[in-house]
Amino acid sequence: MELSRPRGTRDFLFEEMKQRKVVASTLKRIFENYAYQEIKTPIFENLSLFTQKSGDEIVEQLYNFKDKGDRELALRPELTAPVARLYMAQMQKSPKPIKMYYYGSCFRYERPQAGRFRQFWQFGCEMIGGKSPEADAEIIAMASHSLKELELEGFEIHLGHLGILRGILDEEDITGKTQDHIMGLIDKGEPKLLQEFLDESEIEPDTQKILYKIIEMKGTSKLLDEVKELLKDRNKALEALFELEELVETLGMFQMEDYVLNLGIARGLDYYSGMVFEIYVPSLGAQKQICGGGTYNLVETFGGEKVESTGFAFGFDRLMAALIAQKKDLNLKVAADVFIAPISPKTRKAAFGIAQKLRYQGISVEVDLGRRKLKKLLSYAHNLGVRKVVLVGERDLEEGKLTLKDMETGNQTLVSEKELLEHIRS
Amino acid sequence: MELSRPRGTRDFLFEEMKQRKVVASTLKRIFENYAYQEIKTPIFENLSLFTQKSGDEIVEQLYNFKDKGDRELALRPELTAPVARLYMAQMQKSPKPIKMYYYGSCFRYERPQAGRFRQFWQFGCEMIGGKSPEADAEIIAMASHSLKELELEGFEIHLGHLGILRGILDEEDITGKTQDHIMGLIDKGEPKLLQEFLDESEIEPDTQKILYKIIEMKGTSKLLDEVKELLKDRNKALEALFELEELVETLGMFQMEDYVLNLGIARGLDYYSGMVFEIYVPSLGAQKQICGGGTYNLVETFGGEKVESTGFAFGFDRLMAALIAQKKDLNLKVAADVFIAPISPKTRKAAFGIAQKLRYQGISVEVDLGRRKLKKLLSYAHNLGVRKVVLVGERDLEEGKLTLKDMETGNQTLVSEKELLEHIRS
Repeated sequence: MELSRPRGTRDFLFEEMKQRKVVASTLKRIFENYAYQEIKTPIFENLSLFTQKSGDEIVEQLYNFKDKGDRELALRPELTAPVARLYMAQMQKSPKPIKMYYYGSCFRYERPQAGRFRQFWQFGCEMIGGKSPEADAEIIAMASHSLKELELEGFEIHLGHLGILRGILDEEDITGKTQDHIMGLIDKGEPKLLQEFLDESEIEPDTQKILYKIIEMKGTSKLLDEVKELLKDRNKALEALFELEELVETLGMFQMEDYVLNLGIARGLDYYSGMVFEIYVPSLGAQKQICGGGTYNLVETFGGEKVESTGFAFGFDRLMAALIAQKKDLNLKVAADVFIAPISPKTRKAAFGIAQKLRYQGISVEVDLGRRKLKKLLSYAHNLGVRKVVLVGERDLEEGKLTLKDMETGNQTLVSEKELLEHIRS
Repeated sequence: MELSRPRGTRDFLFEEMKQRKVVASTLKRIFENYAYQEIKTPIFENLSLFTQKSGDEIVEQLYNFKDKGDRELALRPELTAPVARLYMAQMQKSPKPIKMYYYGSCFRYERPQAGRFRQFWQFGCEMIGGKSPEADAEIIAMASHSLKELELEGFEIHLGHLGILRGILDEEDITGKTQDHIMGLIDKGEPKLLQEFLDESEIEPDTQKILYKIIEMKGTSKLLDEVKELLKDRNKALEALFELEELVETLGMFQMEDYVLNLGIARGLDYYSGMVFEIYVPSLGAQKQICGGGTYNLVETFGGEKVESTGFAFGFDRLMAALIAQKKDLNLKVAADVFIAPISPKTRKAAFGIAQKLRYQGISVEVDLGRRKLKKLLSYAHNLGVRKVVLVGERDLEEGKLTLKDMETGNQTLVSEKELLEHIRS
């Protein structure tokens, strides 16, 4: 019989689960400090929600299926589309901006490989409405704050604006699918395929040169003047550049200086329209991107009123990989604070009484449930990572006492039941 | 275009999400106080994991589908089978008992109705190995502790033992599917169908009478002597009764007295073998059962070594319904603690600076991102549930001051930037 786990999925056991919880709760705390509030959407959605924006090609990478009522459903591959659906259904009339965050699993049918799973987690946010340079700057500041709070080292925030590349292409009358195809080649980092494609296009050689230059541009805000020179008379692209310039100024107001301008960011998804940013941890190699986001206009794509939005998501699994690679003190192996060991069958009842009292005081307690001998109990307690063991002996008990054993030093102290709580908390 | 949510699913918005988080984190805390540790298994499993124990009939109620590699998968309908799979794959050699808990969504394809959803949440635990009366008593004490901590009123813990009914049937040579069918009719509370079925069976009329009596038996531990009399010479059933008697004694050691013995509990699933319990909130009506569990032997069913286990799960959605029906103070409408309002465009930069400082101090802050007028800002802040607003005025700022407005009293206080943090925390 087949008792294996489906390919590309994972089980999370105690230690890994604790690590993930520490990181997730830190992110929740920071996002809430920026007045974001958590939401949750269903694991599956109508298939059309995802094909609508990304076209039918996306179906290849989806877990889609028909339910018993013949409805076409899909396990969600990302959360921006579900959030846009939710906004349209229930939040169009709420005061803007609406700040939401989510933490949940997504699903993609792709070949499993190192760092890529079929069920993976995203921790992200969307700010719907209220688009402004301040809003965009704040969201980048929040991503940065989150990673600093997690003490992640060596991350790089890369910031760009899709309107520059798209503006150039617009003015060459390259639109729709062709433009998306070009952006896709840039996003995937396929310079040869890009060159072949542009060679065969009707784009002027001069414009092509500018495109190649811009894609390679990375650096500090000093870059902006250089680009301005390059884009002379290309008004649509210049407009985007001015927007980026204003964002750069506003970032200063948020004390954000540590980012790289990167005009080669193209983002894989079609619905991004303006500012975009990605965060890399170069030491992760091929899977170095741990975060991506930007300004988008999904609600309009879905037939709603135009409402510009900004969002980003951490690839939670990659973020975990980066953190675990960097530090070992996320290892939390303790199953309980205290172990209660009855030394003889006669003290068993008292042992349970003590355990329950401590648990009602908020202490994490394990107690012998298997009527084992003391030696076995101590080794079991050690295995749980317990730091303190309460030995419940018959004679001690008659005198109203208990023996508290420190598992690190081996020291034993005789304490009254009243003193026990204090000793455990100290 | 279809932008609706799939039938039987839900979106959770800010307030409901906060309520669910408060309840889930309370349960996590209590379970951890009993030395349970959290695990997570995939959203989908191989279909065979569920058909193996429950037969092919269960497929009707499953979300099952073939993936693009032609594998038969199913969204999990419950979490005990995945946990047993996980145990067999990775934990067979760990010291027993192994105490695990989980919180996650499950899926059933059934007609959506009040209180029944196609994606629903379970919060449960499994103690694998180390079966003993102490272990069973502790797990019931933990369920009770959890509900007390949540201040749920009017819940009833009903405790029984499947070995009594099954023992009687075993001795009448009623086994396998017929026995499961009878237990199913008892579980569903179908007295007429049960009578029809028993009338046509070869079960002695005397035995039938005893069955009917036992099914109806509910009460305190005084009941046990009465049942003993009824089961005279029915040794298999008596053995189970003695086990239940020992459990009742052990529950006393855990200071647990507030439960009802209920010998009519049959549990829907076939893999339960011994002690069983269910918790009801009668005020919920038809959906009154908020918890169910017991002793089972799933690992052996899967071809592993025999290891008796005990587990239970709260139906998290029903638990929420019961809590929300009882009290209103789970309503947490606050999106942020403080709102920072720049009074003029010239103080905007300072406003962001203050917001960032407070956020880095762990305060939840919203700030004007839309360059709105003061009146609009105050109404927006009110809408967020913010209790304090910091007004950043040009003249105040020149003197190193800020105005702190209490949104409840309307009082305004002039404070220095240094004093601000103190005032906000007070």
